[in-house]
Amino acid sequence: MPTKIIMDTDPGIDDAAAITIALNHPDFDLQLITTVAGNVTVDKTTLNALKLTKFFHKNVPVAGGAAQPLIKPFEDAARIHGESGMPGYDFPTDLDQPLSMTAIEALRDHIMAAKEPITLVPTGAYTNIALLFKTYPEVIPHIKEIIAMGGALGKGNMTSAAEFNVFTDPHAAAIMYAAGVPITMVGLDVTMKALLTPDTMTKLPTLGKTGTMLHALFNHYNDGDQAGIPMHDVNTLFYLLHPEAFTTEKMWIDVQTDGPAIGETVGDIRGAYHEGKTNATVCVDIDAAAFNTWFLTAVEAIG
Amino acid sequence: MPTKIIMDTDPGIDDAAAITIALNHPDFDLQLITTVAGNVTVDKTTLNALKLTKFFHKNVPVAGGAAQPLIKPFEDAARIHGESGMPGYDFPTDLDQPLSMTAIEALRDHIMAAKEPITLVPTGAYTNIALLFKTYPEVIPHIKEIIAMGGALGKGNMTSAAEFNVFTDPHAAAIMYAAGVPITMVGLDVTMKALLTPDTMTKLPTLGKTGTMLHALFNHYNDGDQAGIPMHDVNTLFYLLHPEAFTTEKMWIDVQTDGPAIGETVGDIRGAYHEGKTNATVCVDIDAAAFNTWFLTAVEAIG
Amino acid sequence: MPTKIIMDTDPGIDDAAAITIALNHPDFDLQLITTVAGNVTVDKTTLNALKLTKFFHKNVPVAGGAAQPLIKPFEDAARIHGESGMPGYDFPTDLDQPLSMTAIEALRDHIMAAKEPITLVPTGAYTNIALLFKTYPEVIPHIKEIIAMGGALGKGNMTSAAEFNVFTDPHAAAIMYAAGVPITMVGLDVTMKALLTPDTMTKLPTLGKTGTMLHALFNHYNDGDQAGIPMHDVNTLFYLLHPEAFTTEKMWIDVQTDGPAIGETVGDIRGAYHEGKTNATVCVDIDAAAFNTWFLTAVEAIG
Amino acid sequence: MPTKIIMDTDPGIDDAAAITIALNHPDFDLQLITTVAGNVTVDKTTLNALKLTKFFHKNVPVAGGAAQPLIKPFEDAARIHGESGMPGYDFPTDLDQPLSMTAIEALRDHIMAAKEPITLVPTGAYTNIALLFKTYPEVIPHIKEIIAMGGALGKGNMTSAAEFNVFTDPHAAAIMYAAGVPITMVGLDVTMKALLTPDTMTKLPTLGKTGTMLHALFNHYNDGDQAGIPMHDVNTLFYLLHPEAFTTEKMWIDVQTDGPAIGETVGDIRGAYHEGKTNATVCVDIDAAAFNTWFLTAVEAIG
Ligand SMILES: [Ca+2]
Ligand SMILES: [Ca+2]
Ligand SMILES: [Ca+2]
Ligand SMILES: [Ca+2]
Repeated sequence: MPTKIIMDTDPGIDDAAAITIALNHPDFDLQLITTVAGNVTVDKTTLNALKLTKFFHKNVPVAGGAAQPLIKPFEDAARIHGESGMPGYDFPTDLDQPLSMTAIEALRDHIMAAKEPITLVPTGAYTNIALLFKTYPEVIPHIKEIIAMGGALGKGNMTSAAEFNVFTDPHAAAIMYAAGVPITMVGLDVTMKALLTPDTMTKLPTLGKTGTMLHALFNHYNDGDQAGIPMHDVNTLFYLLHPEAFTTEKMWIDVQTDGPAIGETVGDIRGAYHEGKTNATVCVDIDAAAFNTWFLTAVEAIG
Repeated sequence: MPTKIIMDTDPGIDDAAAITIALNHPDFDLQLITTVAGNVTVDKTTLNALKLTKFFHKNVPVAGGAAQPLIKPFEDAARIHGESGMPGYDFPTDLDQPLSMTAIEALRDHIMAAKEPITLVPTGAYTNIALLFKTYPEVIPHIKEIIAMGGALGKGNMTSAAEFNVFTDPHAAAIMYAAGVPITMVGLDVTMKALLTPDTMTKLPTLGKTGTMLHALFNHYNDGDQAGIPMHDVNTLFYLLHPEAFTTEKMWIDVQTDGPAIGETVGDIRGAYHEGKTNATVCVDIDAAAFNTWFLTAVEAIG
Repeated sequence: MPTKIIMDTDPGIDDAAAITIALNHPDFDLQLITTVAGNVTVDKTTLNALKLTKFFHKNVPVAGGAAQPLIKPFEDAARIHGESGMPGYDFPTDLDQPLSMTAIEALRDHIMAAKEPITLVPTGAYTNIALLFKTYPEVIPHIKEIIAMGGALGKGNMTSAAEFNVFTDPHAAAIMYAAGVPITMVGLDVTMKALLTPDTMTKLPTLGKTGTMLHALFNHYNDGDQAGIPMHDVNTLFYLLHPEAFTTEKMWIDVQTDGPAIGETVGDIRGAYHEGKTNATVCVDIDAAAFNTWFLTAVEAIG
Repeated sequence: MPTKIIMDTDPGIDDAAAITIALNHPDFDLQLITTVAGNVTVDKTTLNALKLTKFFHKNVPVAGGAAQPLIKPFEDAARIHGESGMPGYDFPTDLDQPLSMTAIEALRDHIMAAKEPITLVPTGAYTNIALLFKTYPEVIPHIKEIIAMGGALGKGNMTSAAEFNVFTDPHAAAIMYAAGVPITMVGLDVTMKALLTPDTMTKLPTLGKTGTMLHALFNHYNDGDQAGIPMHDVNTLFYLLHPEAFTTEKMWIDVQTDGPAIGETVGDIRGAYHEGKTNATVCVDIDAAAFNTWFLTAVEAIG
């Protein structure tokens, strides 16, 4: 049976690749897409999500969420993802409407209506998740787990300390990690290893309409270097289907909410400062070759 | 025409006095009561609000809100307000139900439905206000002003730095003060001056059923000393009707969200650190005798 | 027997008044003056101390200390004390030299050489004291007590949170309050009450050369208002001789070292957050009339 | 001509290896060893430095420094370096005395007396350096450069954020990085790559008395794993002689002084937050094989 998931996302190019797979892969049952300000404004991330549901002719509902982080001023990543967030491809323009309710309400409704606890996959800043947990704490026991792209034990990408999603809304991250939901942190420690290789990039446009679309987006992606390009958000889905390709460690994750290290996910790697308790499963290594193979196969299957 | 207000509150004994006046005073049109964790848990503050609407046979809707601050662990004030939050008086037990929606939704609905911008009167921690502003930022232009009990330029009451409402949820206070809504800060700088005198306390039980009820609550209130007891939350309503009894200063208010001064409202009293900009009107002095007189008159009029 | 004291100071107009009394009052035996950056640069505060020792023909050694706070960037108070720090009077220009050693070494030498534990009176930022305690911790048991001007439980004078001396070097204040030496905090809670009245100001120039000199300085002092002018630093000396004129409370004082409340001295006024432990005696009230009388008497006695 | 250096150190096993080379390598002229609390107490680190000068019959003066970090409570690393800090080898017991002056004075004297600017090599917490710079800022222009072991752009070793030396005294690190002296950061980004391999460990005891002594210490070192053991502090000396074996990047380094990421060295890796300014040269890669070869050669040469 496919895994029921909800994506909370800020497309964004790697988000677009993740949504592409979540919408189409037979092992996922994508129930809802919620959007948040992050790579670009929430108006644009909502529009981008709708471009993808239309492109793939899918009826998955889209609900727009938080336009601003909780407290930290908003700083987008248009320098990486382009002004639109999904540049380089002409998507359909006759888009569906997003839900009239906000992402936070849509999340509450879908989670509470689900027969079994559902999996949340946040691939943007966690502002919607934080607002959901504080406004409707009754959802918490109905969430199976959170597979969150974001953070790093090692080097960040905004500063050496901070990864973009957590940096964008560190207070939201602090709320999410304190909520008591099982969380797997899919951070830069793995996503910067699981680069799409030049070889994968060469094959991509030969894999049909989907590969062509993604290849066009990737060509406008100012992340990565000659060694390859990171597919940060896509790793969450790979983890859900292939946890065996990952090495993980359980530990306590705190989030730094001020000072120069703002947005740092701090792992208690020695189990020294939280009485041995843990609140997260942290991905620390990944089989990058397996990821490339899986990604190409998944894209090709969509056609 | 009476002033349309919404109270967001955590009764609590001084909240009870404020709700009493807001429900009954002809110059107020109380549209909604929302409740929050603070003096006691949100379950209790909601129950206490319903006890008061029943006691006064008023149909003002009550909606329960946040059970926990955004990030800081919850620390109640039962040592001041008793285990129930409103001890010492036998209220009716056949209470109405609160709204089935959360305080945040009720606030959104009432604010958006109002024909004219409405006045918000928060007298507890600002968690509901913060969640409202971040989840439904569209309400912001529909709020006329916020008259908020909380904070202090001078001495706090939790530490020397922090007043209870802001201390309870400093991150929510930071969000509220950054929202761009006109805010009047009614803090300890005035509420610790506007003590109900022993003489007022003596008169109170002679003023009918309402005075008797409030006198019973006040006798269980572990705040104040022989000089008198503070009516913190009631000062917001007095300000709305009698701003001439207050001295105010415009300045920028920041909120300290960590460290030993957590929960401090920091006023830029010299206009030195925010380029002369201001985000609040701060009450710095009050005519305490006028407050006592007004309070007794208001209670007596209820009967 | 006069009280042996060392003043660590940043003259500054009220420092000048304090040094004046410490140099001349028969109940004080001033062993050493050390200077620090604060009201003006340390070059100027050292010069100002030397102007006063020359003016009074005293051989008390002067040693210059820290030119910068430990971590926070230096922000002087020339707007209050004038560019020179002691404007409005023509002091002698044939000044003595300061000691060739730094204030930190001079403090160490004097404290270690004293036969009995000595009293430290810091009336500027505590940078020298912090460097002394961390570089030469062996001095700590040889200090009888610290009577420190600085801090506030109530309203500050830099922001509503922070008093100038602690604001100037909050990290140094944190070090001083953690050192385990008995500390009396003489902060704005008393110094803003003990104003020199207009009447005192009228009498001052009639009290001889010293009164004339101080009156000239006070006329260039941009602190205070028509109610009177604060003599912050002088209150430390008044406390040493007349503790009966003060109301004090023992409590734990923490120092906020970052965020908007930076420089706040946070008192655990309810004994709630430090297991009932205390590290300071805090002056919370003062007999202002007694202070005025004492000050005039002390100045007149100098002649 | 050999490079004149001063080592400020907390032996500690890897410090011992670094001191061994600094005392004996013909390309270094070690002028002074100062000690600080870190791996073990300052009493023990001073003793350990004296054990090494005696073991090698060298007259390099040793001066003991700070016993405690500036503000953060002291947390040693005896779990890594043993109770004594240099376990597993019987050193001489007829030790010389340390200087009677403190490390801070000894640093000042040696730096000011040097004919040419001198190189500082701190391999422990930077408490002495911070006290030196704040007490005697006149030394700053007389320091050629600082080659400091400590920090990490990537993963720390105390938490995922913080490396031990900076974690031990983050405020001192903040002072050092703000001082305006050219600093090269030799952090975990390189020291965790430059592991002494099992092969190196096998050769070590065959290299004479020095190799035997170091091998004994290394066998009691609870750092590293089967891949090898880190020689953190030794990398500073290798850098001084063989910068060509390192890849470096210039950037601005800030130090986080509170919160869960306390002790994190935050690199502005995108040049986004300090107007393109830099205050450090950060070692980001190292030729680990070259390091092993150099180390063995250096130890063998001592005999
Ligand atoms: Ca994303
Ligand atoms: Ca209240
Ligand atoms: Ca002063
Ligand atoms: Ca070391």
